[in-house]
Amino acid sequence: MKNLKCQIIAVGNELLFGDVVNTNAAYLSSKLCDLGIIITRHTVVTDDENVILDATKMATKNNDIVIFSGGLGPTDDDLTKETLAKFLDVDLVLDDFSLKEIHRYFTAKDMYMPKKNEKQALKPEGSKALRNLNGTAPGIYAEKAGVHYFLLPGPPSELKPMFTDEVMPILKSLSDMAIASKTMSVMGIGESDMAELLGDLLDNETNPKVAPYASPGVVKFKITAYGNDEKEVNDLVKAKRDELFPIMKDYLLSEDGASLEEVLIRELKSDSKTLAIAESCTGGMVSSSIVAVPSASAILKKSNITYSNESKIKDIGVNASTIESFGAVSEECAREMARGVMKSAGSDFGLAITGIAGPSGGTDKKPVGTVFIAVCDAENCKVKKYIFTGNRARVRNSASSFAMIEMIKFMRG
Amino acid sequence: MKNLKCQIIAVGNELLFGDVVNTNAAYLSSKLCDLGIIITRHTVVTDDENVILDATKMATKNNDIVIFSGGLGPTDDDLTKETLAKFLDVDLVLDDFSLKEIHRYFTAKDMYMPKKNEKQALKPEGSKALRNLNGTAPGIYAEKAGVHYFLLPGPPSELKPMFTDEVMPILKSLSDMAIASKTMSVMGIGESDMAELLGDLLDNETNPKVAPYASPGVVKFKITAYGNDEKEVNDLVKAKRDELFPIMKDYLLSEDGASLEEVLIRELKSDSKTLAIAESCTGGMVSSSIVAVPSASAILKKSNITYSNESKIKDIGVNASTIESFGAVSEECAREMARGVMKSAGSDFGLAITGIAGPSGGTDKKPVGTVFIAVCDAENCKVKKYIFTGNRARVRNSASSFAMIEMIKFMRG
Repeated sequence: MKNLKCQIIAVGNELLFGDVVNTNAAYLSSKLCDLGIIITRHTVVTDDENVILDATKMATKNNDIVIFSGGLGPTDDDLTKETLAKFLDVDLVLDDFSLKEIHRYFTAKDMYMPKKNEKQALKPEGSKALRNLNGTAPGIYAEKAGVHYFLLPGPPSELKPMFTDEVMPILKSLSDMAIASKTMSVMGIGESDMAELLGDLLDNETNPKVAPYASPGVVKFKITAYGNDEKEVNDLVKAKRDELFPIMKDYLLSEDGASLEEVLIRELKSDSKTLAIAESCTGGMVSSSIVAVPSASAILKKSNITYSNESKIKDIGVNASTIESFGAVSEECAREMARGVMKSAGSDFGLAITGIAGPSGGTDKKPVGTVFIAVCDAENCKVKKYIFTGNRARVRNSASSFAMIEMIKFMRG
Repeated sequence: MKNLKCQIIAVGNELLFGDVVNTNAAYLSSKLCDLGIIITRHTVVTDDENVILDATKMATKNNDIVIFSGGLGPTDDDLTKETLAKFLDVDLVLDDFSLKEIHRYFTAKDMYMPKKNEKQALKPEGSKALRNLNGTAPGIYAEKAGVHYFLLPGPPSELKPMFTDEVMPILKSLSDMAIASKTMSVMGIGESDMAELLGDLLDNETNPKVAPYASPGVVKFKITAYGNDEKEVNDLVKAKRDELFPIMKDYLLSEDGASLEEVLIRELKSDSKTLAIAESCTGGMVSSSIVAVPSASAILKKSNITYSNESKIKDIGVNASTIESFGAVSEECAREMARGVMKSAGSDFGLAITGIAGPSGGTDKKPVGTVFIAVCDAENCKVKKYIFTGNRARVRNSASSFAMIEMIKFMRG
């Protein structure tokens, strides 16, 4: 059993100018760690042949794998592929399949392919082009003297699927290590509170290790085990899961890494129930996260983004007097929104969010961050008041997550 | 006039594991660029003395400034300061002011200072401690042989204010350069098409330089000029802007870096007009991006996420026969959605999106990615058909961006 070593090199002035955050490095690192690969270094360099060449030479000395992101575009300052060809001491040759793919990409958009994009179909001789279903830049895989080089496009929407579909299978074939992992997610409890409950069970240094990842309302705990064969690592993960489960069970969201929206859809679907949503301060964020999951159509009947009082009254039957007496951000209004949207949609459940996301609009009694979340079915209605901290984006994000948490808890009873 | 060069080194296993994204590098880079400092490289290394020492030596060769983030904590694996002392060949000495500050930090929280934290008051002999008002780790500033070293704490909430308050004044005293920049954004034209139109004007090597940054539907071009005084650099930027403008003007989104949603809100507001939106496949994504901008309430009356046919008919008056004859994803349905939501909201404009985001639901005549975007006011209605490529997330993202683009174009007439 041997841990492969990898360096990640991002190429692009936009990163060095600080215009773009290097999220690719974190994404790749996390995926590589899952494969038992050790990340030795992240480097970001400028779009300059000599600099890229220099970085490639340095990385080659200490690593088995070098992954590049960026610099595969059609313009003259996209140089990663050209530099790798120079480093490998080979010519660039046309990859017929890639050229067809790029043509197809433009034809599908009813667009003419600019001459410049032809360059993207070139690859270093002897390398393999990696298919890009989400853009025009194919990736590249090359090997020299036992070191494996991967060139991936810079945009995360292109890099991520290419990594999963094209790079992962190659990396898996390079390693003789067995790895198993499992993600247990909890909701509605903070990272440090859960960590205190878990005590020594939360350990990043042991095998299997348990590492926490926090996001608004949800903390994922990833168990990872390394070993020589599949049975060994699966048993290690299973044993650790059985230790964690009794402590986590009251807060458990999922045991398969499913997100809030995925669990929400799954549990509604398995009960053949439907949902309708009324959103105010979140402005469509909850609905959009749910619709991001392909199977959403089975459970979401509709949503009303009742951003104005008028639409709260007219579209989902909130009483004008309720808004007058208690305000649009109130327990009473949230309750009428949830019931109203459920009735209007003829759905089994209604979910409503109304709050003050800021930066203005707060008062002493209802400060910025005050959010009411209401959930109802034909019989019952539950309203919960939250006061979230942070800026507008953070308040809306938290409100969106906790709306789904309240909905899941309500369904589970 | 001389551009100072800087490398940013982040220290921390959490970055190499992919648990934390290196947002500090982007933040620092952006601030340093504004000061006319050239960022030569970002590096992320592990918490290991030899590795940090090696990275420091390399960075010293090619830079005037080296900024470190992370590794200033109280635990044994926090090694950045110890390593810098070794590199500078000096001892660590106690900084009395820092020790008082750390004591004060704990006292203010009504806590006892753990013995471990005393370590944080040490500094390399001859260096200056940088005050930390938001945590216990003071920063460090040292100089050796004309190279300036800054050590900053890892948490962004501590690093950012320390950079602004303590590091900026020192950096400003080191440079004699003036700098100006301006961002011009275009919409509805791809990066390579715009690049072809711009030809030689798009040059990253000249002064002023012009650099492109692409996102769905929008490409930003950032003009940056360096020089000896403010007038000179402002004139350079202005002259380049005047060269770019005639070529960009038919596609111009903004000249101040404003995003699609910001421009949409701004232009509706300045005409005192209101908008209502009907979303199907985007599921609230357009509304949510608009509501993310604080001033949205002035222009957005409401949105209907009419995810089911039933809600298209019942809530915004689409004819059942239209859906029957042409389908829910059709020019005809999009038009009725836009008109229907406008009428129902009593708004000046209606915007509607209906499409097939995938992965299933496509047909030969209407493949996955087919999206109809309709915009209308009381007199006119314009519907445009797009076929977007990529996965569900990408199709929805593109549909969302192009819906705002169609809306802005329609308003501008």
